Amino acid sequence: MSEALHTLEGWYAYHDFRKIDWKKWKAASADERQAATDELLRFLQQCGANEEAKEGSTAIYTILGHKADVLFMYLRPTTQELEELKTAFNKTRFADFTTTDYSYVSVVELSNYVNSPGEDPKQNPHIRERLYPILPKWEHICFYPMNKKRDGNDNWYMLSTEQRRELMYSHGMIGRKYAGKVKQVITGSLGFDDWEWGVTLFANDPLQFKYIVYEMRFDEVSARYGEFGTFLFGNILTEDKLKNILSV
Amino acid sequence: MSEALHTLEGWYAYHDFRKIDWKKWKAASADERQAATDELLRFLQQCGANEEAKEGSTAIYTILGHKADVLFMYLRPTTQELEELKTAFNKTRFADFTTTDYSYVSVVELSNYVNSPGEDPKQNPHIRERLYPILPKWEHICFYPMNKKRDGNDNWYMLSTEQRRELMYSHGMIGRKYAGKVKQVITGSLGFDDWEWGVTLFANDPLQFKYIVYEMRFDEVSARYGEFGTFLFGNILTEDKLKNILSV
Amino acid sequence: MSEALHTLEGWYAYHDFRKIDWKKWKAASADERQAATDELLRFLQQCGANEEAKEGSTAIYTILGHKADVLFMYLRPTTQELEELKTAFNKTRFADFTTTDYSYVSVVELSNYVNSPGEDPKQNPHIRERLYPILPKWEHICFYPMNKKRDGNDNWYMLSTEQRRELMYSHGMIGRKYAGKVKQVITGSLGFDDWEWGVTLFANDPLQFKYIVYEMRFDEVSARYGEFGTFLFGNILTEDKLKNILSV
Amino acid sequence: MSEALHTLEGWYAYHDFRKIDWKKWKAASADERQAATDELLRFLQQCGANEEAKEGSTAIYTILGHKADVLFMYLRPTTQELEELKTAFNKTRFADFTTTDYSYVSVVELSNYVNSPGEDPKQNPHIRERLYPILPKWEHICFYPMNKKRDGNDNWYMLSTEQRRELMYSHGMIGRKYAGKVKQVITGSLGFDDWEWGVTLFANDPLQFKYIVYEMRFDEVSARYGEFGTFLFGNILTEDKLKNILSV
Amino acid sequence: MSEALHTLEGWYAYHDFRKIDWKKWKAASADERQAATDELLRFLQQCGANEEAKEGSTAIYTILGHKADVLFMYLRPTTQELEELKTAFNKTRFADFTTTDYSYVSVVELSNYVNSPGEDPKQNPHIRERLYPILPKWEHICFYPMNKKRDGNDNWYMLSTEQRRELMYSHGMIGRKYAGKVKQVITGSLGFDDWEWGVTLFANDPLQFKYIVYEMRFDEVSARYGEFGTFLFGNILTEDKLKNILSV
Repeated sequence: MSEALHTLEGWYAYHDFRKIDWKKWKAASADERQAATDELLRFLQQCGANEEAKEGSTAIYTILGHKADVLFMYLRPTTQELEELKTAFNKTRFADFTTTDYSYVSVVELSNYVNSPGEDPKQNPHIRERLYPILPKWEHICFYPMNKKRDGNDNWYMLSTEQRRELMYSHGMIGRKYAGKVKQVITGSLGFDDWEWGVTLFANDPLQFKYIVYEMRFDEVSARYGEFGTFLFGNILTEDKLKNILSV
Repeated sequence: MSEALHTLEGWYAYHDFRKIDWKKWKAASADERQAATDELLRFLQQCGANEEAKEGSTAIYTILGHKADVLFMYLRPTTQELEELKTAFNKTRFADFTTTDYSYVSVVELSNYVNSPGEDPKQNPHIRERLYPILPKWEHICFYPMNKKRDGNDNWYMLSTEQRRELMYSHGMIGRKYAGKVKQVITGSLGFDDWEWGVTLFANDPLQFKYIVYEMRFDEVSARYGEFGTFLFGNILTEDKLKNILSV
Repeated sequence: MSEALHTLEGWYAYHDFRKIDWKKWKAASADERQAATDELLRFLQQCGANEEAKEGSTAIYTILGHKADVLFMYLRPTTQELEELKTAFNKTRFADFTTTDYSYVSVVELSNYVNSPGEDPKQNPHIRERLYPILPKWEHICFYPMNKKRDGNDNWYMLSTEQRRELMYSHGMIGRKYAGKVKQVITGSLGFDDWEWGVTLFANDPLQFKYIVYEMRFDEVSARYGEFGTFLFGNILTEDKLKNILSV
Repeated sequence: MSEALHTLEGWYAYHDFRKIDWKKWKAASADERQAATDELLRFLQQCGANEEAKEGSTAIYTILGHKADVLFMYLRPTTQELEELKTAFNKTRFADFTTTDYSYVSVVELSNYVNSPGEDPKQNPHIRERLYPILPKWEHICFYPMNKKRDGNDNWYMLSTEQRRELMYSHGMIGRKYAGKVKQVITGSLGFDDWEWGVTLFANDPLQFKYIVYEMRFDEVSARYGEFGTFLFGNILTEDKLKNILSV
Repeated sequence: MSEALHTLEGWYAYHDFRKIDWKKWKAASADERQAATDELLRFLQQCGANEEAKEGSTAIYTILGHKADVLFMYLRPTTQELEELKTAFNKTRFADFTTTDYSYVSVVELSNYVNSPGEDPKQNPHIRERLYPILPKWEHICFYPMNKKRDGNDNWYMLSTEQRRELMYSHGMIGRKYAGKVKQVITGSLGFDDWEWGVTLFANDPLQFKYIVYEMRFDEVSARYGEFGTFLFGNILTEDKLKNILSV
């Protein structure tokens, strides 16, 4: 395996962005709404049990703007389990009141550009926590997909391993400044979805997303080589808030 | 924090562009239309009360063209409040007669490229008015999102802080020429939405939008480094005009 | 005002491209269709009266292809009047049988790159006719939006005023060769819609559109600096033809 | 007229790509389906009569893939006749079971880059056959739109007439190698639709489309200057096959 | 035929990506669902019989994410047979519960950049197996379309045959490293669909897709000359799993 492949993969990820069909929801009877809400809560409780057993993790956030209303982000050991979640959700009554315009399929990834070459990273408990992360219950989420550019002189994939390692090192240093303020989950999507990576950020202060993305944009890795897709931002969705939102 | 981060953030912003489903509106009974109109007016009166209390600001404009019919632009202290507005609106009867194809999530931002480095800008009442602005009730609005380019030799993020400061200074000088004619609200959207900034302009004469955008386009900051998204233009929507539009 | 701003603005323009929902139209009763047709004809007669009074102008053309069926192009003194037309049309019964996927908002614009700097163009009756044009009733129409490029070395907005003036002079010379064959209405849309300009051409022979656009494309202004959007082409829609089309 | 304009135009072309709404078709009664099929066959017989009279030509092909199910390609002397066909088709019962997501408006065009400058090509019967072609009833069709690039150093419209003539000559030589295997109908769409040209190819062996497009792509005209839109491929649709497809 | 044309073509390919309309499926009666499921299973059994007779091959996979739910990938000797499959599927009851937003039309292709020039590859049984492949029943599938770039200095089609042969040779060497882990089916789509090639990968471990695509991206052929479309990923869909998914 070439040096280019120094990455480690953990759980598979599925970001399912759903819109609520409010017209249909309001037109349903109170009984139908109750049954659909109960079924959704049971579905989410199973996700919670799965997380307690450390067999995966699930994050539920509302999304601001018209692009979606709720994000269900699942981490699971296999793509088969993600498919079963997708199908199970679609079979719930609640799903009949939703539509999906956007989603993302990827796998948790650690690049070891910044690790010592001699280390076996899978033995490192800190690294295991990052490959199989329990998603934090922080107040806010930000998701965006990205590529490394291949455009004329700005071609990441034509750089030497050494050049990439140096650039990624300084990039990683910026990330470390935000330790405790921003938690990053990087997922690789080559072979799984349209971009090369997905970036999922968690923070208790939304401005920290702006600060980290802005500061990194001046870093050569992003300034010359970063290509970014759509950005989605949301607030955490607790069970109480979910019940409140769905009550009409 | 690096020098790149010399920005100040104020209220969060949500631009909600709605289309009216005229076929459905006309097919509704007069009673349904009245109830929906009354509910919308109460919703907007609450927005007005919020603005009176200086706890936020709201601007309501019709939008010309097929891209939308009405813009509801909200400024609020937290993203949680913006989410509550989105949900509350969706629960109104009026919302059932609308669809949303476009929106924008951002935060009021002042860059201090043109300020003295020693000043604490948050103590400046003029700056506080710009971070927490009461949106003007001027006749017209113009909204567009934008990026700074990262394209070959035209890469804003590879310039030095000094180069960017000089370019932004001359850019700001153009803006000042339009004082009293065009009011600008710049919102940052890194981490919140697809572009880096949103620009919301207010004017009593629509041609002033054309003049300022055209003049700035010859400025090197825009000419070489500006990348622009969709433009939306509208006329102010007073309560009387709203009642008139909705009466069929 | 900088030299860059040597433009003159006249009437505001709204191009409203409508598709006819033929399935719904044919499913309506003969009475419904008659009432909708009558209401549309009254709407267009009011547009005609407005034009007679020289308070605006209106052009009605069918559009070939799937992008639209009918173009309603309105010129009016204010954006408020354009909004009123949009709303009034949407309230007609005929509008219920249509959908809108495309439109354009702009303002009639004359650049005086080719005028003597000392002249006051608004005193010139020929220029007034071009700022407040009565749209010709020629057989065919062609509409497309365009930008001036800002791409590496092909950056219109980094050229000097003198360079732009020379390039536009030779460009204008091509336009003059088509006098009597092609009538151009240039509208500026900076601040109003997604592109910088809209171009509306009228001709009695459709090939003249092809000839003028092709010849201009070899001119450096277009070859190096032109960026073009969608093209829409149509035939004139007289009242008799309209009745004929709508009769099923 | 500049040398750039050495083109000849013939019949106008309208490519109407239709999707069949199979759910609705199957839900219709056998009588409705029969009436719709009969009306479609009468419409096509009129197209056939028009072709017999050499007043136009019509090609009907199924389209593979999800982009469309059937292509109706019409050639007619005027854009008015194409509009009448579009309207007449939309008024048929069959049209109620179809939708249109794509179409193309253009005019048959011969460039005489490869002709002797002194010749009057309109007197040449071979050229007349190409300007007013009876479309072949070959087994397969391929349609794609294209532009000549204007991108940095690869700018077709900044080349001299002599350079373009030489490049087109070698391009034409490739086309001649496919005589008898691939029939090309080139249509110009400047002023009519979104791209500069439409290319319609006919062949009895689908691989000939792949061979000619691939071989031409290495030719400098395409390699450096070609910009290609969507490609659509189909099989010929005879009356018997049409009846068979529509029988459920 | 020029040296550029050293490719061999086999069976034609149709990738039909379907979404299931879960709302409609759940609203149907148990009898309707049973009848639709039975008809789908019969359709797939015919595909199986066709494969047993080596007259084609069919692969059925679920697709993760919102872009599709099920992929039906067909290989057949003629485009006429693919059209018949498309029509036959659309006539099934099951099709009424699906929609298609994406598909791909292409033909199995072997380039012989890496073969000895003197060999007649169609006599080689190994090559025949690759031109007329029985698709493997491996656990996972990945599909993406791609082009070779023609962009400034990164123009594949301006390279010499020798340069392309060398680049493809090293590219092929990477592919060989994955023998037994990733099975590739390359299909050419020039003249058939929007991109130049389709790539269909099969693997039992999803990470192998990520590894091969990532490793190849550093290879000059992809790094400088590759242009990639959407990526779709899925799990194998056996008859039992299909029954299970469709049971509600």
